[in-house]
Amino acid sequence: MSLNYYEYLGKVREMNPLVQSITNYVVMNSTANALLALGASPVMAHAKDELDEMVAIASSLVINIGTLDEYWIPSMKKAVKIATELDKPITLDPVGAGATKLRTNLALELLDIGNITTLRGNFGEITALLGEHGKTRGVDSAECGSEEALETCLNASKEFNTTVAVTGKVDYIANKADNEYFAVKNGHEMLSKVTGTGCASTCVIGAFSAVERTPKAVASALSTYGLCAEKAVLEAPYPGSFSVKMYDWLYLMNKNVLKDGMKIEHYNI
Amino acid sequence: MSLNYYEYLGKVREMNPLVQSITNYVVMNSTANALLALGASPVMAHAKDELDEMVAIASSLVINIGTLDEYWIPSMKKAVKIATELDKPITLDPVGAGATKLRTNLALELLDIGNITTLRGNFGEITALLGEHGKTRGVDSAECGSEEALETCLNASKEFNTTVAVTGKVDYIANKADNEYFAVKNGHEMLSKVTGTGCASTCVIGAFSAVERTPKAVASALSTYGLCAEKAVLEAPYPGSFSVKMYDWLYLMNKNVLKDGMKIEHYNI
Amino acid sequence: MSLNYYEYLGKVREMNPLVQSITNYVVMNSTANALLALGASPVMAHAKDELDEMVAIASSLVINIGTLDEYWIPSMKKAVKIATELDKPITLDPVGAGATKLRTNLALELLDIGNITTLRGNFGEITALLGEHGKTRGVDSAECGSEEALETCLNASKEFNTTVAVTGKVDYIANKADNEYFAVKNGHEMLSKVTGTGCASTCVIGAFSAVERTPKAVASALSTYGLCAEKAVLEAPYPGSFSVKMYDWLYLMNKNVLKDGMKIEHYNI
Repeated sequence: MSLNYYEYLGKVREMNPLVQSITNYVVMNSTANALLALGASPVMAHAKDELDEMVAIASSLVINIGTLDEYWIPSMKKAVKIATELDKPITLDPVGAGATKLRTNLALELLDIGNITTLRGNFGEITALLGEHGKTRGVDSAECGSEEALETCLNASKEFNTTVAVTGKVDYIANKADNEYFAVKNGHEMLSKVTGTGCASTCVIGAFSAVERTPKAVASALSTYGLCAEKAVLEAPYPGSFSVKMYDWLYLMNKNVLKDGMKIEHYNI
Repeated sequence: MSLNYYEYLGKVREMNPLVQSITNYVVMNSTANALLALGASPVMAHAKDELDEMVAIASSLVINIGTLDEYWIPSMKKAVKIATELDKPITLDPVGAGATKLRTNLALELLDIGNITTLRGNFGEITALLGEHGKTRGVDSAECGSEEALETCLNASKEFNTTVAVTGKVDYIANKADNEYFAVKNGHEMLSKVTGTGCASTCVIGAFSAVERTPKAVASALSTYGLCAEKAVLEAPYPGSFSVKMYDWLYLMNKNVLKDGMKIEHYNI
Repeated sequence: MSLNYYEYLGKVREMNPLVQSITNYVVMNSTANALLALGASPVMAHAKDELDEMVAIASSLVINIGTLDEYWIPSMKKAVKIATELDKPITLDPVGAGATKLRTNLALELLDIGNITTLRGNFGEITALLGEHGKTRGVDSAECGSEEALETCLNASKEFNTTVAVTGKVDYIANKADNEYFAVKNGHEMLSKVTGTGCASTCVIGAFSAVERTPKAVASALSTYGLCAEKAVLEAPYPGSFSVKMYDWLYLMNKNVLKDGMKIEHYNI
C-alpha cells in the first residue's frame, strides 16, 4: 500500500469508522472514549438478537474476552461469524488467555470459526494460544526478551494464518504470509499503571483496520497509540492525570507529531 | 409553576433525590458520578428480585437501553411497571433506537406499558420510534435541521402522550398537551467526543424530574448540563480533560452562573 | 506484628498482589485503576467455569455485591467457597445491605459459607447485617454518631467472628477476638462526591490483606486511602479533578507522607 505510517490516522478520521465492540466491563467506558477521541465511533452491543443488524452497519468488529462468561460467549461467537460472513475486519484481544482454560479455549475457537484480521495480545497470552506453557499472570503481561516475543509473533502468525501483534516493550507485528514484520518502539511504561490500555490499543487497531487490513496498518495503530502515551506522560507523569491526557492526545495527535515521533521498523524475513 | 429556570438545580440539591438507574455498562460509572457531582444520589440496581424495594425508595427512575440484552430487558420492564404503579417519575433514553429492531421495539414497549414522564433521545432515535425510516447510525446522532427536529419532538410528544426531548445542536422539549415547547441552546460539540454525555443528560433530567414533572424542568435540566459543558470547555478544550471538568462544573454550577448563561426559549404553539 | 502502620504500603508494592475482584459494574474500571496505581494487580473475572483457576493464582479475593443479580450471585458464592478452601484472604463489601432483602441475605450467606477475612461497610449496611432496622438509603451511608458506629463494629465483629470495618467520618476496625480496635480519622468528605470510593477502599483492604490478615492491616489500608484523599483534595477541590488526583496519590503515596499524615488510634477493650 502506498500510505505512509503517519497517514493512517488521518484516513481513520476521514472515514470515522463505526467500531462495534464486544468487550469487557472494565474497559467499556475507557475504550469508547479512546475511539471517540481518536476520531472513530464506538458502539458496544452484545445482544444476540441484534448482532445481525449491528455488525452490518459497523465498519469493524473488536472482540475482547476480558470478562467473558457463559452468557457473553455465545454473543462473541455469533458476532465473529456474522462479521466473517459480511467480510468485516475483526480484531481479537484474548485477554487472560493462559490464565484459565476457558479463555484459552474461547480465543482458539474464535480464531477457528472466524476470519480474524488481527490477533493482539501480550507475550503470555499469545504463547498460551500456541499451546506452550502460558506465562500469563491474570491479565498482566509476562516479561520476555525481544527475540522470544518476535518468534512467538511469527509462529502465531503462521499457526493462525493471520496478522498477529505481540505487544510489550517492543511491539512485534507480523503476517508471515507477507514475509515481513514490523517492530514498534513507541509507548511508555506508565500505560501499565492504567487499566484497559492494552484493550484500548486493540480498539485503535480495530479502527485502523477499517482503513486497511495489513500488518502495516496495525503497526501504525500501535505506534500512534504509543506515541500518545509518550506525549501524555510528559504533561502528566502520574497514572490518574496521565490517563486523562491520553484522551487529549488521541484527539490532538496529528500527521506532523506522528512523522516526528513514530518509531516503526520494517524487516523482511 | 413558579420556579425560574435557574432555580431547579438548587431544589435538586435540597432534595438530594435518589435516582435509580438501569442503564448501560458503558456509562454506569460516568452517570453515577454526574449525579453525585450535581447533588443527587445514584443507585444502579437491576436484579429483578430487588426492584420492588429499590424503586420504592427511589425518587426517580431512569431507563437507558444502551446495552440491553435478554437478561436485562425483563428488569427494565419490571422497573417501569413498578415505578408506574408507585407514581415515580420515569425518564427513558432509547439509545440506538432505529439501529436495531430490538431497541426500537423495546423502547416502544416501555412507552406502552409505563407512564414515561420524559423520553429523551437524539433526532434519529425519536424519528425511529415514530416509525419513520431511522437515521440512527449506531448510537450516534444523525444530523438534522432545526425545523425537522422540532416537528419530530412535537409529533412524538403527541404520539406517546408524554414530554419529549429531542437533543442536538438545539434541544427541543415539548409536551404537546401543554401547547408549548422549549428550545435550549446551551451545550458544546465537545460533548460528542465523550461517551455517555447524552446518557448523563438523561440522568440529570431524571434528577430534575424528582422536583417537578414538567417540560420546563426538562429544559432547565438540559440547559444546566449544557452550560456545564460550555464552562468546562473553556478550561479544558480536549476530550479527556474536558470530561473531568464536566464533573467539576456539575458540582460548581450555581444560580448566578445559570442566570447569566442559560439559553432557553419558550414558545406557545 | 511488627510492621508499623506506614510500612504496609511498601510491603504491598513489593508483593504486587493479584487481587481477584467480583465487583459491581459501576466501579470495575475505577477500582482496577486504584489497585494498579497503588501497586497491586487487579483481575476481574466472574465466570463460574474459570473461578477455580483464577482464584488459585490470586493473592486475595474481593467480593462487592453492588450490582448483584441472579447470574452473578452463584459466582460470588463459588468464589468465596474456593477462596476459603484455598485459604486466601477474602474481603466482603455488602453494598446496599439493608436497602433490599436480596442484598442483606446474600451478604449474610457469604459470611456464613466462607471464611471472610474482613467485612467493610458503612454504618447502615453493617447495622442491617446485624438484623437491626437498616438505615441504608440505597447505597448511601447513613449518618451516625461515633459511639453508635463503634458499637456496631464491635457487635458485628463478634457476631460474624471476623474483622469488621465500619467506615464513615471516623472508620472503626475491630476483631473482637483480639480485644482491641482501631479508629482511623483520615479521609475527606469529597470522597462522597465520587462513586466507588468505598468500593476502592475495600479493594485497598484486599491488597493489604495479602500482606497480613489483621485489623491493623485494615486500619493501615483505610488510613492510606484516606490520606490520599486528603492530599488529592488540596490539589483539586472539585469531584472530577479530585478523582483523577486520587489515582495520582495512590501512586505517589510513600512512607514519609504516611508517617506524617496517618491518623490511627489504637485502643484495647
